[in-house]
Amino acid sequence: MSAPTVDVICMGNAIVDVLAYADETFLSEHGLTKGTMRLIDAQQAAALYADLPPGIEASGGAAANTAVGVASLGGEAAFIGRVGTDQLGAVFTHDIRNAGVRFETPPASGLPTAQCLVVVTPDAQRTLSTFLGASQQLGPADVDVAVIDSAAVTYLEGYLWDPPEAKEAFRAAMLAARGADRRVAFSLSDAFCVDRFRDEFLDLLSGPVDVLFANETEACSLFEVDSLPIALRELRGMCDIAVVTRGADGSSVLVGGEQIDVPAAHVDSVVDTTGAGDLYAAGFLYGLTHGLDLRACAELGGRCAAAVLGHLGPRPQTPLSALLDS
Amino acid sequence: MSAPTVDVICMGNAIVDVLAYADETFLSEHGLTKGTMRLIDAQQAAALYADLPPGIEASGGAAANTAVGVASLGGEAAFIGRVGTDQLGAVFTHDIRNAGVRFETPPASGLPTAQCLVVVTPDAQRTLSTFLGASQQLGPADVDVAVIDSAAVTYLEGYLWDPPEAKEAFRAAMLAARGADRRVAFSLSDAFCVDRFRDEFLDLLSGPVDVLFANETEACSLFEVDSLPIALRELRGMCDIAVVTRGADGSSVLVGGEQIDVPAAHVDSVVDTTGAGDLYAAGFLYGLTHGLDLRACAELGGRCAAAVLGHLGPRPQTPLSALLDS
Repeated sequence: MSAPTVDVICMGNAIVDVLAYADETFLSEHGLTKGTMRLIDAQQAAALYADLPPGIEASGGAAANTAVGVASLGGEAAFIGRVGTDQLGAVFTHDIRNAGVRFETPPASGLPTAQCLVVVTPDAQRTLSTFLGASQQLGPADVDVAVIDSAAVTYLEGYLWDPPEAKEAFRAAMLAARGADRRVAFSLSDAFCVDRFRDEFLDLLSGPVDVLFANETEACSLFEVDSLPIALRELRGMCDIAVVTRGADGSSVLVGGEQIDVPAAHVDSVVDTTGAGDLYAAGFLYGLTHGLDLRACAELGGRCAAAVLGHLGPRPQTPLSALLDS
Repeated sequence: MSAPTVDVICMGNAIVDVLAYADETFLSEHGLTKGTMRLIDAQQAAALYADLPPGIEASGGAAANTAVGVASLGGEAAFIGRVGTDQLGAVFTHDIRNAGVRFETPPASGLPTAQCLVVVTPDAQRTLSTFLGASQQLGPADVDVAVIDSAAVTYLEGYLWDPPEAKEAFRAAMLAARGADRRVAFSLSDAFCVDRFRDEFLDLLSGPVDVLFANETEACSLFEVDSLPIALRELRGMCDIAVVTRGADGSSVLVGGEQIDVPAAHVDSVVDTTGAGDLYAAGFLYGLTHGLDLRACAELGGRCAAAVLGHLGPRPQTPLSALLDS
């Protein structure tokens, strides 16, 4: 087994976000549940966009954000996901490559690049409506086994379970990673997503997944409980490392019988939480692949999350490597 | 003469900005002069974009930003400018309309929507490289005389002098506004732009222009002097009202023999100056069309400028009308 040449390869939906501020009334008028992601079709996307206040466009996608975070810290990162042959696909491709991430999945013609309409409420929460478009056209053939073999960690987003073909790609990637004796990391992505695939996700956790990322809501949804301590107790021992992020309360790492609690990093002003969980995972996985202990991994994750909370958009606007000195 | 039903109609290039942070080295390596705008063709745009760090996309265009600012304050605003039939044209159209601006210019097919590649340096200065694309296809036939007749102020950007057809549209709009006994406002836009069209701009100022907007550099460039006091002396009496913005030093309004100096509004942290001048003009013109005295106009202009200095992108992210209470 040769040493890995890639730190983290991420696989997920290749999405351009449209982010706009709106108040709670906008959410209720459009049947949106704050803090969650729902899938919409092209017509629903057009209708919601027509009502959306002026916004900005920024490359997104949960696992793609994580790959960018790892690269921004100075790590070697790769991404697998599919865009369309349109202007937004070119934007996504430009942004991830120029962030230093290896991205070779060819674009699909036919469907437009996936879009996520992100409503940011005054409490900085984000509510996502995703039109998967070309992202759905990811399949097992897109899994570059050579890159996965060469990557210390293969990181997969729960959102990939929605497009049926992508689920097969997800399974192929996990198999390849396990076959090469690499680590598999997995994010639960969203409470509704957990609700759709609870049993399958539980099987993954007791099976091929080594490192789990979840926020409080997702962890509680997984076990259908209201109490975080109960969810943490259930998670204990399900996979090597389980990381639960708790917003302003920091994060908890469960490993063996131990629980490591780390406070949140300081942020002057929280403007938009989009991408915070993805960047936490980036910092944690960078640490894990660079010899940091688990507490330091969690602390770096928190600092990376904090780096995207002060602006609209899911990715860092300046290099995260500056955080490594602090 | 009936009372105006539109406060400000703005005419200019319809542009989507791509904004990215980079350091001074990036500017010098790409032959860019900090704080200025240069025109580039499609090939140059592709080459510069290939090198540009990851960015965000945000609707821009100087006069369009001003129109959005007026609407965001609660004023009646309209915009004339041309986009293409592509995804970015749809983004521009969505953003300006959902900001409450009347925008009826039909898109052009053939050329892509104009793009401005904005490099933001650590000192928050912005350096612009603009590919005019479909914006060049604006002509006199696009000037909606009925709307101009109904607008208290017709606001035009100096940048419009670059595309030859648009210059004719500019002239047509001025003629219509003068014919309807409305005010004509004009922004010098950029020091290089002034350099290209100095004599014509001086003719406009001693002719149809009632209200001039310029920053220090542009005012000095207009008279080819290094000293702002000299430039201010030259400007005095050239048009009814001349407004010179001076960044952190605030702004000066020249009217008759008088000079009104107003300090800059407080900003916690200046992140990106893109759009600050455009939003200053929005606040000033809103004030002018709502019975504020000139000092109050300048103060409101400063507050509107401050509202876009704290984030990447040229337009306000939340309603400016909140500033009217302060």
